[in-house]
Amino acid sequence: MPALSKILQQCRKWNSRHLLGIKDLSKSQIEQILRIALDLKGVPVDQLRKAAPLKGRRIFNFFVESSTRTKISFGIAARQLGAEVLDFSPGTSSLNKGESLKDTAKTIESMGVDFAVIRHPSSGAPEFLSRQIHGAVINAGDGASEHPTQALLDLLTIREATGRINRLKIALIGDIAHSRVARSNIWLHQKLGNEVTVCGPATLIPAGLPVTVSHDLDAILEKQDVVMMLRLQKERQEAGLLPSIREFSMLFGMTRERLDRLGKNAILMHPGPMNRGVEIAAEAADSHSAVILDQVGNGVVVRMAVLLLLKEALR
Amino acid sequence: MPALSKILQQCRKWNSRHLLGIKDLSKSQIEQILRIALDLKGVPVDQLRKAAPLKGRRIFNFFVESSTRTKISFGIAARQLGAEVLDFSPGTSSLNKGESLKDTAKTIESMGVDFAVIRHPSSGAPEFLSRQIHGAVINAGDGASEHPTQALLDLLTIREATGRINRLKIALIGDIAHSRVARSNIWLHQKLGNEVTVCGPATLIPAGLPVTVSHDLDAILEKQDVVMMLRLQKERQEAGLLPSIREFSMLFGMTRERLDRLGKNAILMHPGPMNRGVEIAAEAADSHSAVILDQVGNGVVVRMAVLLLLKEALR
Amino acid sequence: MPALSKILQQCRKWNSRHLLGIKDLSKSQIEQILRIALDLKGVPVDQLRKAAPLKGRRIFNFFVESSTRTKISFGIAARQLGAEVLDFSPGTSSLNKGESLKDTAKTIESMGVDFAVIRHPSSGAPEFLSRQIHGAVINAGDGASEHPTQALLDLLTIREATGRINRLKIALIGDIAHSRVARSNIWLHQKLGNEVTVCGPATLIPAGLPVTVSHDLDAILEKQDVVMMLRLQKERQEAGLLPSIREFSMLFGMTRERLDRLGKNAILMHPGPMNRGVEIAAEAADSHSAVILDQVGNGVVVRMAVLLLLKEALR
Repeated sequence: MPALSKILQQCRKWNSRHLLGIKDLSKSQIEQILRIALDLKGVPVDQLRKAAPLKGRRIFNFFVESSTRTKISFGIAARQLGAEVLDFSPGTSSLNKGESLKDTAKTIESMGVDFAVIRHPSSGAPEFLSRQIHGAVINAGDGASEHPTQALLDLLTIREATGRINRLKIALIGDIAHSRVARSNIWLHQKLGNEVTVCGPATLIPAGLPVTVSHDLDAILEKQDVVMMLRLQKERQEAGLLPSIREFSMLFGMTRERLDRLGKNAILMHPGPMNRGVEIAAEAADSHSAVILDQVGNGVVVRMAVLLLLKEALR
Repeated sequence: MPALSKILQQCRKWNSRHLLGIKDLSKSQIEQILRIALDLKGVPVDQLRKAAPLKGRRIFNFFVESSTRTKISFGIAARQLGAEVLDFSPGTSSLNKGESLKDTAKTIESMGVDFAVIRHPSSGAPEFLSRQIHGAVINAGDGASEHPTQALLDLLTIREATGRINRLKIALIGDIAHSRVARSNIWLHQKLGNEVTVCGPATLIPAGLPVTVSHDLDAILEKQDVVMMLRLQKERQEAGLLPSIREFSMLFGMTRERLDRLGKNAILMHPGPMNRGVEIAAEAADSHSAVILDQVGNGVVVRMAVLLLLKEALR
Repeated sequence: MPALSKILQQCRKWNSRHLLGIKDLSKSQIEQILRIALDLKGVPVDQLRKAAPLKGRRIFNFFVESSTRTKISFGIAARQLGAEVLDFSPGTSSLNKGESLKDTAKTIESMGVDFAVIRHPSSGAPEFLSRQIHGAVINAGDGASEHPTQALLDLLTIREATGRINRLKIALIGDIAHSRVARSNIWLHQKLGNEVTVCGPATLIPAGLPVTVSHDLDAILEKQDVVMMLRLQKERQEAGLLPSIREFSMLFGMTRERLDRLGKNAILMHPGPMNRGVEIAAEAADSHSAVILDQVGNGVVVRMAVLLLLKEALR
């Protein structure tokens, strides 16, 4: 396992200013992030804190949509590297007063922020922000567009569980249409040359994605190396996209029965928060195939890797 | 006054992993917490910060119900001992998305948390959490069940004001039924062998508690060493448990007149936040008998004591 | 540029315990704050952090109304000087339970707070707080009364843009009646001997201010050195104080046309958050005359100056 100084040295070759989406990354950039994250896993937290490679850097955590794990995970990652974290919770902010994203960007800029981590309901908000400020922008989820650090931490989890990131069959199950997690994973595995299948009701699968489409979960289940369940927003039913939650669960949920039919070495993933009993049964979520807990744990180290890499392109 | 190193040494004998309720503590454990808290009062804050006995420890402040003093007080206590505090405010969290407590627990676990401080509307939530994570769980109030650190800081305040923790007559006044503060105090003083009387309208006093029950405040007032007023939730009236707030104040409020009839050395307590003019008149709240301010101030030191003790049982 | 030690020495002569409003400051106090703020601009952040002149001090950020820039700016200022910041967001607090400001004050007091920064919808709340606690109180906006640090950062911005703080013609445009920013600026420029004109609909201009009143923006525009647009709260229309937002913009908005008629060296200000297209057109907000971005940036340094000065009067 390389020492921290060596890891930091490996970050030097990075040349993108922002992390807006997986779509913008090259295959080798994805592999570099993964490598740094894996290496960071071997560095004791004490050593990170002492070295404090982001000392004097200021990170603005700007979450317009609700979030637990992503926000906290970025916060831990940043503080562990010695950065200062400013949390901006929209509930108590000027957004209530109808301030434009442009003016919020100007505020961020004027306060001397090095990194802005943004979650926003509108697709493209991070890209817009990146054109307004000098610091690095990290997309923490924008509309149904992308959630790049989620796909990267998923990749790290896959790498640890299966030992590889290539020659994989990956299925994304459920509401593909509204899922930024699905899109970031699709772009990522397309770049890595993996075989992606999406499976769900026709109303929740958009056209034009570079994937195999299925509407029959039982037909595709057994051959997958990775099965990723997506969160079902209950609002989809009200919108008429689903006949009923119950029927959805029967057709596209990871039930106890389907769990038994997963491949012996297959892994079961979920980005959280889970609707137990809807897209995933409690038995499945808590089973040996599930690596959901590892996904959460890997969030911190992947975000540290991203911060360290983007730091190189600052200023 | 013992030096900090000696205090830390005294913490070594602790052997409970969590602080879920006063009910689970032995009399000698209660006395040990009190002793550590009293000793910590003599240690300058600078010295605590420098020694940083919780350095490298991570505390998750998980408050699903609103709170000012408890949340901030845990935060100060933790930071003063050198720990890192993660605040989790449910308004901007996945709880809005209906995540189960089980999955939140898994998230906490995956982020490498040493202590989880939890306030939750459901009785038993801290106990449930304690079965899901490796870290120490501290109950900061669960439903109408327990609020152990409140009862402990009340005890410290009583000790300082009266010079003793035994041979006491203690009255809890008002809404006993819905009060976790009342329950934690009742268990605590039962263990210490003190004489507890509860007094309030019949609709707000549950059966089966190991206490003397009264419905006549004026009849019991004069003989008490400690009179603890409880917060009246105005929703109780809507629920039909009270004829009117005005009548409640007349019968069970600490009015100016009743203040004069307290014993000469008796002390008046309130866990806050107070409804001035409802369960306690402004003159009473601001009187010399009141030790309400001391209660708040004692919160930090008691929580430091609890954190230092539980640290011993970590891992 | 003086070294930090010299700046800190200059703070010694300060003798006010609180910053409640510009009204309470003398002309020489205003100049002293401005001087310290200007000098602090020359001190590298690293040097401030290392010196940590507020180390061991605790700041309570108590914002009952929503705020982005003010709250964050106080937070950055305090942390940059080495202080500990406690954020108190009313959404998750006891204020929901109807606690009185008096009891909140007592809580603050009991937690050993050195500075309380307060924003409150009621005029006079900071003054009330200052009578309850030993620490220094800083008004971060109270009702329609004052917002002193805003007027001070505006002054710093004016000083940098025009090179002077005297012999100025300043116009405040829009809703004067409900604006604490307007009031703090009026008191400030009255003390400095500048010529202040307020301009807006008769329904939004209160009587009795020591200013020239105009209802015709086009008539006064050209001769101003400083034009400060105020935020229009849309609720004013519902209250019947405005015929329509559109008419308000036509009569009192900084349109593109009016921008061309500003004096060559005149500057355009706005305290934010802006309603683009209402009181200020996007072209105006983004024009070379606008110093709105500088205003935000100057917030941190002005608040550092205030904290350093008030520190001298602590205890």
